[in-house]
Amino acid sequence: MHPDERQERVRSSFAKQGLMTTSGATLGSVSSGMVEIALSPHPAISQQHGFVHGGAVSAIADSAAGYAALSLMPADTGVLTTEFKINLLAPAAGERILARGRVVKAGRTLTLAQAEVFAIAGGKEKLIALLTATLMAVKGRDGISN
Amino acid sequence: MHPDERQERVRSSFAKQGLMTTSGATLGSVSSGMVEIALSPHPAISQQHGFVHGGAVSAIADSAAGYAALSLMPADTGVLTTEFKINLLAPAAGERILARGRVVKAGRTLTLAQAEVFAIAGGKEKLIALLTATLMAVKGRDGISN
Amino acid sequence: MHPDERQERVRSSFAKQGLMTTSGATLGSVSSGMVEIALSPHPAISQQHGFVHGGAVSAIADSAAGYAALSLMPADTGVLTTEFKINLLAPAAGERILARGRVVKAGRTLTLAQAEVFAIAGGKEKLIALLTATLMAVKGRDGISN
Amino acid sequence: MHPDERQERVRSSFAKQGLMTTSGATLGSVSSGMVEIALSPHPAISQQHGFVHGGAVSAIADSAAGYAALSLMPADTGVLTTEFKINLLAPAAGERILARGRVVKAGRTLTLAQAEVFAIAGGKEKLIALLTATLMAVKGRDGISN
Repeated sequence: MHPDERQERVRSSFAKQGLMTTSGATLGSVSSGMVEIALSPHPAISQQHGFVHGGAVSAIADSAAGYAALSLMPADTGVLTTEFKINLLAPAAGERILARGRVVKAGRTLTLAQAEVFAIAGGKEKLIALLTATLMAVKGRDGISN
Repeated sequence: MHPDERQERVRSSFAKQGLMTTSGATLGSVSSGMVEIALSPHPAISQQHGFVHGGAVSAIADSAAGYAALSLMPADTGVLTTEFKINLLAPAAGERILARGRVVKAGRTLTLAQAEVFAIAGGKEKLIALLTATLMAVKGRDGISN
Repeated sequence: MHPDERQERVRSSFAKQGLMTTSGATLGSVSSGMVEIALSPHPAISQQHGFVHGGAVSAIADSAAGYAALSLMPADTGVLTTEFKINLLAPAAGERILARGRVVKAGRTLTLAQAEVFAIAGGKEKLIALLTATLMAVKGRDGISN
Repeated sequence: MHPDERQERVRSSFAKQGLMTTSGATLGSVSSGMVEIALSPHPAISQQHGFVHGGAVSAIADSAAGYAALSLMPADTGVLTTEFKINLLAPAAGERILARGRVVKAGRTLTLAQAEVFAIAGGKEKLIALLTATLMAVKGRDGISN
């Protein structure tokens, strides 16, 4: 696939993720093996202390890692997360929450990817979470496409 | 704390989680060391294949584990997730998605909890995810209460 | 495979694990989807505080989970751990350290298993670690058999 | 603490880890927030297919991450691993297995560290495992010192 096609595939798939739209998440830069997703803190995605909910942080981090993996996969392949682990290092607060996903090792069946999540405020980035995910390439399963 | 007070604390905290309301999640049974949270699949929380997004599954699983931990903590304590790991075993589809959190080991500072997530359809439960989380008890931090 | 053959396969594979012999680990009960491995604390497997090293605890927990998975796999299949996560809940000290592995969900390619690790002293068991592992069934790879 | 004292503390603690000696592991470079530990593959630390056992890989990775954390902690503090997650990406085979631990975020109580593990053969390094660990600083607990 041409890099433009890969990007287009990621953007088209992202647009179908209802949770991303509901959360107000936006897709940032998409390149081979690296994808960014951002979120603006607001009450609809908060936890009980007013910070962005760990589930919302996990969702954009998981999606950033998953799309980084998808960006390196063949055209007829979809991607599923089989497992992830996330360390939440500091409260998710600030003007913007940014997840940067990148592929650590791409394999035929399984890909390992990480996402760093930053809280951005006053022009400064602070690392607030680190996710590691295993993504599986899937072909021709019912209901699984990009 | 009296069990009723513990339950009330969990219910009051849950009501403040914007993401839970936005996702349409509802709090089920709350007892000492065990909490259930349910979700009905709908497009606003889907991923690109139409299943419930792994981020939404993680959010209810993390919250169920966290509230199970909180249900055993002293009155003046809040709870924060420091890390979790989730294995996504099958697509999250069906009539209802149910996360059952339970404490594995309660400690003074750190509590280990797990949540099993089931997809319910036609009266049958299918295990679709397993989460393990480390929860931290926090006292008197700025902005951290229940 | 007959249950006896499955048991025999696990026992034969375990005997080939140099690290298990070196650590003094012994294979306990083996049944379909459940395997126990035990260890006696001694200085050769300690960490700096004199407790059993987390790496040795992880090794028997990972092996117990892996053999629990292998016990359910077809005859021509080997097993590899693709990832695991372990929470170390208390120092590994006592007369005996016992890992109990069990399959959570067996799949064609990936199996999810858990192992609980107990420290046994004075006839009492104390949970000291919890491991979750993803195991992959492998066929016909160079150098991979049971 | 002076950097030399920090290094000395790590080296002295490492020498007390029976499992490291038993495994034939050696401590490599030690600097502030970064520690290397190496291992030579041999039958005493193998799994059933002849590769280095995942438990031995985990042990050096966990120790490298833990000592990277300890290298940044105050003089009167010991370190304990509370949890780790490791992805095993390729068989651990080659002339040497090298774990490189580095601190991702140092905190007062909890530190997050990672370790990359490489298999070295013919002058080439291949990433074979990635570990993420949470380390806890401990003071004045019975039996816990460096």
